[in-house]
Amino acid sequence: MSYHAPITDILFAMIHEAGLDLGFKDGVYADLGDGFAEATLREAGKFAENVLSPLNRVGDKEGAKFAQGRVAAAPGFAEAYRQWTAGGWNAITGPSEYGGMGLPVLLNTACIEIWSAANLAFSLCPLLTLAAIEAMQSHAREALKAVYLAKLVSGEWTGTMNLTEPQAGSDLGALKTRAERQQDGTYKLFGSKIFITYGEHDMAGNIIHFVLARVPDAPKGTRGISLFLVPKFLVGADGALGARNDVHCISLEHKLGIHASPTCTMVFGDHGGATGFLIGEENKGLACMFTMMNSARLNVGVQGVAIAERAFQHALAYARERRQGHVSGDMSEAMSPIVQHPGVVRMLMTMKAMTAAARAICLMTADSIDRSRRERDSSARERAAERASLLTPVAKAFSADIGNEVASLDIQVHGGMGYIEETGAAQFFRDARIAAIYEGTNGIQEIDLVQRKLGLSGGAAVHREVADMRAAAGALGNSNAENFGEMEPCLAEAVDALDRATAFMLDASKTRVEDALAGATPYLRLFAYARGGTALARGALAAHRLSLAGNSDSALPARIATARFFAENIAAGAGGLEREVTRGVGSVRASAAVLGQ
Amino acid sequence: MSYHAPITDILFAMIHEAGLDLGFKDGVYADLGDGFAEATLREAGKFAENVLSPLNRVGDKEGAKFAQGRVAAAPGFAEAYRQWTAGGWNAITGPSEYGGMGLPVLLNTACIEIWSAANLAFSLCPLLTLAAIEAMQSHAREALKAVYLAKLVSGEWTGTMNLTEPQAGSDLGALKTRAERQQDGTYKLFGSKIFITYGEHDMAGNIIHFVLARVPDAPKGTRGISLFLVPKFLVGADGALGARNDVHCISLEHKLGIHASPTCTMVFGDHGGATGFLIGEENKGLACMFTMMNSARLNVGVQGVAIAERAFQHALAYARERRQGHVSGDMSEAMSPIVQHPGVVRMLMTMKAMTAAARAICLMTADSIDRSRRERDSSARERAAERASLLTPVAKAFSADIGNEVASLDIQVHGGMGYIEETGAAQFFRDARIAAIYEGTNGIQEIDLVQRKLGLSGGAAVHREVADMRAAAGALGNSNAENFGEMEPCLAEAVDALDRATAFMLDASKTRVEDALAGATPYLRLFAYARGGTALARGALAAHRLSLAGNSDSALPARIATARFFAENIAAGAGGLEREVTRGVGSVRASAAVLGQ
Repeated sequence: MSYHAPITDILFAMIHEAGLDLGFKDGVYADLGDGFAEATLREAGKFAENVLSPLNRVGDKEGAKFAQGRVAAAPGFAEAYRQWTAGGWNAITGPSEYGGMGLPVLLNTACIEIWSAANLAFSLCPLLTLAAIEAMQSHAREALKAVYLAKLVSGEWTGTMNLTEPQAGSDLGALKTRAERQQDGTYKLFGSKIFITYGEHDMAGNIIHFVLARVPDAPKGTRGISLFLVPKFLVGADGALGARNDVHCISLEHKLGIHASPTCTMVFGDHGGATGFLIGEENKGLACMFTMMNSARLNVGVQGVAIAERAFQHALAYARERRQGHVSGDMSEAMSPIVQHPGVVRMLMTMKAMTAAARAICLMTADSIDRSRRERDSSARERAAERASLLTPVAKAFSADIGNEVASLDIQVHGGMGYIEETGAAQFFRDARIAAIYEGTNGIQEIDLVQRKLGLSGGAAVHREVADMRAAAGALGNSNAENFGEMEPCLAEAVDALDRATAFMLDASKTRVEDALAGATPYLRLFAYARGGTALARGALAAHRLSLAGNSDSALPARIATARFFAENIAAGAGGLEREVTRGVGSVRASAAVLGQ
Repeated sequence: MSYHAPITDILFAMIHEAGLDLGFKDGVYADLGDGFAEATLREAGKFAENVLSPLNRVGDKEGAKFAQGRVAAAPGFAEAYRQWTAGGWNAITGPSEYGGMGLPVLLNTACIEIWSAANLAFSLCPLLTLAAIEAMQSHAREALKAVYLAKLVSGEWTGTMNLTEPQAGSDLGALKTRAERQQDGTYKLFGSKIFITYGEHDMAGNIIHFVLARVPDAPKGTRGISLFLVPKFLVGADGALGARNDVHCISLEHKLGIHASPTCTMVFGDHGGATGFLIGEENKGLACMFTMMNSARLNVGVQGVAIAERAFQHALAYARERRQGHVSGDMSEAMSPIVQHPGVVRMLMTMKAMTAAARAICLMTADSIDRSRRERDSSARERAAERASLLTPVAKAFSADIGNEVASLDIQVHGGMGYIEETGAAQFFRDARIAAIYEGTNGIQEIDLVQRKLGLSGGAAVHREVADMRAAAGALGNSNAENFGEMEPCLAEAVDALDRATAFMLDASKTRVEDALAGATPYLRLFAYARGGTALARGALAAHRLSLAGNSDSALPARIATARFFAENIAAGAGGLEREVTRGVGSVRASAAVLGQ
């Protein structure tokens, strides 16, 4: 099925839900004004629809192929990648001194949704390059930047993140790859890494690996990890490619989905050592890697939104066309389109509303990242940085989860056809499943939220966020709009539930951290319901105001109906989630009888 | 991963949650006494573990193969099927006058869980034969029974259900396959059918198709459908196989999962007409087919339980072995097994509790079917039949849904390894996805529950069921058992929520059927939470009594902890579901703005 980039939906969410409207006013987003954001998204949409989307199915069927140490990208991917870099799409947020456009993360986040929806497996390659660019920009020496950064920004070379080892997945402190200091200031790396996305391929002239390893006298655990740059081909001072470095792909994983994204096992140093260059300081690698990870985490959340959007479009198109049975009141001879059946309506509206809520959360996270860099006032930058930190695990985990749920509903709307691979719903379902796993499993995001992020500034960051949600829900009460239904009381209840659950979490985190962690899963979901629901409410209010002002855009009532559906049906589950957080602790403690742990 | 048939869990659920204890007392299950049930399940467990489970992975990888009209079963399947019939496993519930054992559906349901968990794709073949046996038993002429029934009961021949056509999926009234009367009383069938499970294969000597078709002068819609028996090979009066009938498989579907179960497109009558024999009366085929469907629907629910059980075992084994990080308070050098991390505990307990609740619902549905046939008193039989009718859509849809959810959690517990096909979690995830679709999509089950089943005996059937749940929840209050936690208030709230939602549904069904259907999805889930939670509570009370009586079985505290987890965490969502049913109607009505329907 063809993909239609939902430009107006994304723009509306950027402007009215995520804060672009404010950024136009206060100048933080001056470079997105005069229609620049829309024009960019429209071009992105064309590229995604015309170049990336047509390769999605063949990428799934053929996949990337491994033979004798080489990886051939899926059919058409290398040429599409060439067009991608030629179009400048790799350079949106890159630093201008290295050829980038220096544009806001908010704009790029919107673009990443579009690439990921069109072709998730393709989009992973530039996503990892982007993470590499950010780590280099923040932590690398100027000499390294001079050699590598411009080519990563343009996309001529691609980047990878080499973290995981068999015994070190969620726990990076357990990793064993060694880096031995050489007399010339470089290092020789020895070890192997698994699950390396685009660790090897034939789409770019060089591949720049960012590798976590230990120097010989490093402390144990995460305080003894260093970050190294290890190029596939060594690079001369003149920028010319030199000898092949001692880093090799030895196999690809056979995965449930994203078949066109090669997931490599990489071996370093089997022939004398892989030459590596230290990024930042020895033993400070984890901090550098977190720079890469935070951006990547938001973008994985965006992948969930992207697959959800595509699955929704796919399901809606089928539901409008497919006819079965007769809905009540339909006296015509022909069967009714299934989009008229209430159960199908509920599925489609759940898909739409979940997608919209997750999109709003991702975009407001991106806005916070921009503000953490672009606000004039340093305390405003600091607050924005805290907000980005707080929202990132929610954006990642919730969006990844709804990506799975919405992709599953696409199968369900299709009935028997949904289970047949040719229909395409199955691919979305298989592809979507990775997002809850990589860049820190959703379980890691929940721990991050509860153990690290709730305590930011002694709880002030989360309290500011809850206050913002309460204000958004409260604003509904003044509108008297009939089509808002019970949006206001439902969202007010959800925010209250989050507020109480947050108090429980902050208290438990001090003395009974296990009790806090026992409720981390429902807590994150509750947070997302309240944050997503109130963000959509803000959009609904804007749509209402625009309608009152005479704007006859038929999408405006749809935005109100979507926000209302979310509030009355999905956010309605907030009370149950709160109870899981606050009353489910005892039953988690009692689980030893079942699990024997 | 190897599968371990959970005999003691299943037996406990049969006895203490589904009503086998009562059946021992009142004689309905006299034939299961003296350890017969346990002995049978133990033998079934051995067969499943030793013969069926080892073929599960190869069946997924190799699948069934189509070439020139023939279908070759996956490697090892034909020999396993031979052992299956030789072991008598096909004949458990078959009528004794045709070689069956005439044993209770309850016992067979437990066995079906075991077969389905060991090898879902294999188990589908006998499941369809079973449905065919039931349709023949109830509706076929004696002469047909004499020729076909004994061989279906033994499994020497297998059965299929031919319902779906491209334009007629959920809406069978739209089907077009024709059946022309012949002078000898037989019919010639012409048409094609899709999605025919085991429509062609090489595991049995003959395949007996049960086919829905229209006679020439049939009324439109579902009142003009007749059921025909169409054998692959015609059968002489002496029982010997004769000429090949004009029914052929022309292709297999390429599916997301259950690769070893051939899903066939069947063509009837391309070479002069397929000879068919009428089952029951002309134009009464749908009633006959519903006999097949109801039994099949329960069994599809059981498949959800089965995959969930296997996924739970798989995840628990990994979580005990895999070590990452250190849980709070663990000062040892080695990393902690992830089964000790609270977030993983929550996932595993959710898997365990969902599985147990769905199993209880399926087994109590089976018990009701037995009682509808075995009770001495006709009014008791009638009440039991209504109960079976009421519970069947819940058993099917809820169990299928939790099969998906639990299989997805298995992937999540495995982290990155879960996304790799070799781990096996991905197969469970792919296989499980079909259960919510076939034998009536879950949407059809929800409509069935709300439109047909709630109204049974003017609402008396559902009121009896809610009263039974309330009694089970109330009984907890008298126990004073400390390890019951907040089970009683949580379940009482859930039953109250169901009661109110039921009143809303019964009222809406009379005048605003669209409003009832708009809430059918959350209503069915709410029903399952209350029914499943209170069934587990009944088990917890029994475990408590057994412990007090000196039984030191270590599984008893586990049953209490599982019931408690379900009540405090899962049933805690009941209030939100009730609100979706009763307050979400307006937002579903308002959806036209979004969906344009």
